[in-house]
Amino acid sequence: VPRSIGIDWGTSSLRASLFDGAGRVLETRVRPWGIRSLPAEGFDAALSDLLSGWPLCPTCASGMVGSRQGWHEVPYVDAPANADALIRGLFQVRAANGRDVSIIPGVRDSAGPDVMRGEETQVIGALVQHPELAISSQMILPGTHSKWVDVADGYIVRFTTVMTGEIYALLHEHSILGTATRTTTDASLGEAFDEGVRAARASGNAGVLTRLFSARALMLEGRLDENKVSDYLSGLLIGEEWRSMLASDWLQQDRRPVLIGDERLCARYHRAAALFEIAPPEIIVDAAARGLWHIIARASVDAPPRAATHCESTN
Amino acid sequence: VPRSIGIDWGTSSLRASLFDGAGRVLETRVRPWGIRSLPAEGFDAALSDLLSGWPLCPTCASGMVGSRQGWHEVPYVDAPANADALIRGLFQVRAANGRDVSIIPGVRDSAGPDVMRGEETQVIGALVQHPELAISSQMILPGTHSKWVDVADGYIVRFTTVMTGEIYALLHEHSILGTATRTTTDASLGEAFDEGVRAARASGNAGVLTRLFSARALMLEGRLDENKVSDYLSGLLIGEEWRSMLASDWLQQDRRPVLIGDERLCARYHRAAALFEIAPPEIIVDAAARGLWHIIARASVDAPPRAATHCESTN
Repeated sequence: VPRSIGIDWGTSSLRASLFDGAGRVLETRVRPWGIRSLPAEGFDAALSDLLSGWPLCPTCASGMVGSRQGWHEVPYVDAPANADALIRGLFQVRAANGRDVSIIPGVRDSAGPDVMRGEETQVIGALVQHPELAISSQMILPGTHSKWVDVADGYIVRFTTVMTGEIYALLHEHSILGTATRTTTDASLGEAFDEGVRAARASGNAGVLTRLFSARALMLEGRLDENKVSDYLSGLLIGEEWRSMLASDWLQQDRRPVLIGDERLCARYHRAAALFEIAPPEIIVDAAARGLWHIIARASVDAPPRAATHCESTN
Repeated sequence: VPRSIGIDWGTSSLRASLFDGAGRVLETRVRPWGIRSLPAEGFDAALSDLLSGWPLCPTCASGMVGSRQGWHEVPYVDAPANADALIRGLFQVRAANGRDVSIIPGVRDSAGPDVMRGEETQVIGALVQHPELAISSQMILPGTHSKWVDVADGYIVRFTTVMTGEIYALLHEHSILGTATRTTTDASLGEAFDEGVRAARASGNAGVLTRLFSARALMLEGRLDENKVSDYLSGLLIGEEWRSMLASDWLQQDRRPVLIGDERLCARYHRAAALFEIAPPEIIVDAAARGLWHIIARASVDAPPRAATHCESTN
């Protein structure tokens, strides 16, 4: 029986999950309507299409939908923040079709300063899946803006952002390094990626900004195949993320970090970790849906009686 | 009396200088026709327009015009390379209108591997302007692809490329950091730039990839004015270039590097150097035209008699 709906609404994608009372996913819908690529009619139209035919029931949304460029700007919750703090910061928006959607707030770390929107929900989801991580853990959420998150006693204690994915995309799509290259499938991920990771590690304290151009020189010399440049670049940049975090005080030798997110992207970080002689991190997938479900379920239990805690049928 | 023509033909711009016998510039013409932004009719048409009315006389071109994507691919000369090596590597192309243009080869450093096209001519020009630099010097040529060049005994001994300018442009034009910002004029270059440089220095061995996102967080918090983000980013990235080169074995404490290139861009590197407590580098401008003239003049003297060493009138 459908009991709640979770919406993961980021910059470039939109995914809705329909949950039963035990948190099992009954149906998933994906649309290419990130907040930067909405249909012309905007958020209301996207939501109306996305949830069409699904019952009226408690609905939460996480991600950039709550940013200044989103549907409605929801104030950040300050770190340290746990699930209860996120629930207290829920911000309810009523869509044109009458549905109420509770937007989960992002988290702000004043020490950076740094901000996240969406990853806090994945962290909560990972903690639901692996309660043993709540005491003390370090989580890595690779992506357009990778987040490194320290968790203690169920709280997001501190975090920092590394723009690895965005830099990769920019170099690949717009720079002189990307013009002659094609994206390869992950199936072929191999020596070129490893070579990039090794070059990043070998860059020492200088870092890879001085090594990026080597991709072009290697290609011109025929030592790097044109269609391997993107793997080499990916290795350089993911390697730089590990190098940089090892050089800072973020990656603590006594903790084994976990990777959370897209399985194929996490696999790249996992492979790079091995080349840095870091113990292989565990990979946690589906954390976003799990976190959405947990927050909806807990918010519904805590909510005053008039809030809908059961589903009503809709158009 | 016009005696020779030098053409600086890069990725995004095209500049021709008409020289007299003493190397004085009689006229300069600038067109927006870099090799990536040529008029539809291509190189011949661009050249025909550019040099229209100028006499037929020894003509050299430097830069990406000699690259694989250029007018004609000219093989690199290997480092160590001096002016004579460049002259031996000149590659003559005859344009549709009958003009002969000698393209100056780029230089390749197999140790990187790394490559340059155009900067070698600026280095020669700087050595002509400041012969005392020939014995032993370190030159920095800021740009889309900044080059750090070690010179000894008049030879380009080794060099490396830092893609600072390209990364800045990509972040500014295409990333989440640039979307809400406007470019400021250099006149307003001030605290935001300095703050970026200081953040880069403070990043220590971790480097600025972990700090780039702070520009967004600072902006969201109102601590960084939207129209100052580009200056802050510029400071972060130019600061990273200094940080990185100090962390490597490139920047040698016993040498005072010189800056070669665009005066306003060099001024940013000069300002950043001060924040790193590096002795203020001297700034050398107009090195490209000077290098072109020197190479043409020397090549013409050395050339067999049938080469045109005097000007003939043309269309």
